[in-house]
Amino acid sequence: MAQPSRTLFIISDRTGITLENLVRTLMTQFDSYCCERMVLPFLDTPAKIDAALREIDAAAVEDGARPVVFSSLVDEGLRTRLKQANAQVFDIFDTYLPQLSQAIGVPHSGHIGLSHGIGDVGEYDRRVSAVNFALNFDDGSRFKGLGDADLILVGVSRCGKTPTCLYLAMQYAVMAANFPLTEDDFMFGRLPEPLRGHGERLFGLTISPDRLHRIREERRPGSDYASLAQCRREVSAAEGLFRSNAIPYLDSTAVSIEELSIEIMQRIGVERHY
Amino acid sequence: MAQPSRTLFIISDRTGITLENLVRTLMTQFDSYCCERMVLPFLDTPAKIDAALREIDAAAVEDGARPVVFSSLVDEGLRTRLKQANAQVFDIFDTYLPQLSQAIGVPHSGHIGLSHGIGDVGEYDRRVSAVNFALNFDDGSRFKGLGDADLILVGVSRCGKTPTCLYLAMQYAVMAANFPLTEDDFMFGRLPEPLRGHGERLFGLTISPDRLHRIREERRPGSDYASLAQCRREVSAAEGLFRSNAIPYLDSTAVSIEELSIEIMQRIGVERHY
Repeated sequence: MAQPSRTLFIISDRTGITLENLVRTLMTQFDSYCCERMVLPFLDTPAKIDAALREIDAAAVEDGARPVVFSSLVDEGLRTRLKQANAQVFDIFDTYLPQLSQAIGVPHSGHIGLSHGIGDVGEYDRRVSAVNFALNFDDGSRFKGLGDADLILVGVSRCGKTPTCLYLAMQYAVMAANFPLTEDDFMFGRLPEPLRGHGERLFGLTISPDRLHRIREERRPGSDYASLAQCRREVSAAEGLFRSNAIPYLDSTAVSIEELSIEIMQRIGVERHY
Repeated sequence: MAQPSRTLFIISDRTGITLENLVRTLMTQFDSYCCERMVLPFLDTPAKIDAALREIDAAAVEDGARPVVFSSLVDEGLRTRLKQANAQVFDIFDTYLPQLSQAIGVPHSGHIGLSHGIGDVGEYDRRVSAVNFALNFDDGSRFKGLGDADLILVGVSRCGKTPTCLYLAMQYAVMAANFPLTEDDFMFGRLPEPLRGHGERLFGLTISPDRLHRIREERRPGSDYASLAQCRREVSAAEGLFRSNAIPYLDSTAVSIEELSIEIMQRIGVERHY
């Protein structure tokens, strides 16, 4: 029997980012079922919780079905208040803190969560510095900073190097540089000069020629650069270069930036700074 | 009584990103207590779980304290296997799926989670396109695409526009453009010409002159550009421009990229595409 559509609320005293990702993960297990998601961040006062309660009640009436509420509210008073909602409420602190506290033998503090706040300023600045570091390499002209990189992503133009470097920087404060392989680099079949001596920090990205062709067509329609023949040639040459130089590599075609990032860090043993 | 240090394992069949963020949020509630965190991603076979069990057991012996394990394993067989660990195990699927299933009246599927996988290719491509869109504005020279932007961040050089645009793009596929304010823009006190007609999509960023000075000093030490006097002048002029043109703005000084992003989307009502 088909279930009525109902609204899924995500309620947090901070950004709600962690909670939204948790809910997204959980909902992958109900693949045929689709809820409307309402994210309500920064609810840190009783008045704001009360406004949320009104929204939840209105959704219950409109949907003709009890909403589901996921919350992350550090303040116990706010949590208690939210439980008056005409909804099934799951709060991650209620769920985990008592058992976690018992497991580690330490009481929990009740301070508001800072996992997506600025928290430790030094740590935060490292993330922003890493983003700027990644951006410096985006035009492929700043090879002199390669020595400062935690890792160097190597691959043909538009294979996904830059978004991956930016993700590594933003999430883990990893200094990731980006080295685009061009025709010139393939002529001699040797590792391009600026990459020599960085062996253990090099990681290759490859991509299916079909997908590369589609991506480049969007950028420069009808160009030689975007032609399938050119994409095939470059991808084949890049993979040859990776193999002959024992550079580990991954195919980005059907893999997300997040998956690539985590797997790259694991494979070459990069330390997370965050 | 001080508790012994113990190891906190994060075990996932995919990237473990969601889980790591959840654990980071929970651990903010035990601020004086510090665990060593071990992230073990992509554990999707019994053999890989067995290897993790050995690591967990070794940590228990070395620490002289039972590890705490957070896991997100979709496969019930793997979850059961992991429970043999000499550790307190919390699995998010065990925790939430039965109650969530009951709340929405739909059975859960047991398919592996894709919340950080490529999932819907169209959706994923929108995120990468948004990252590229944000990068196009990074040098401040590509004003002609402003019409395609979901929002336009305006502010002086180095106040945090680019990292915020990139985060909005990466996480929410929001097309965020970046417009740097320069001396020339301040001379007449009017909104710069390229920004006119985009009123409802403009959002200002400001920053404390002290912090701006420190950031610019790292980039161009000793320059006029980085001087505190210049930073004060620019920040004051930018804030004046925001106020006289009724552009909402936020101070990025003590606020993280994540908090800025969420608050900006909320304040100007930008739709998330992811």
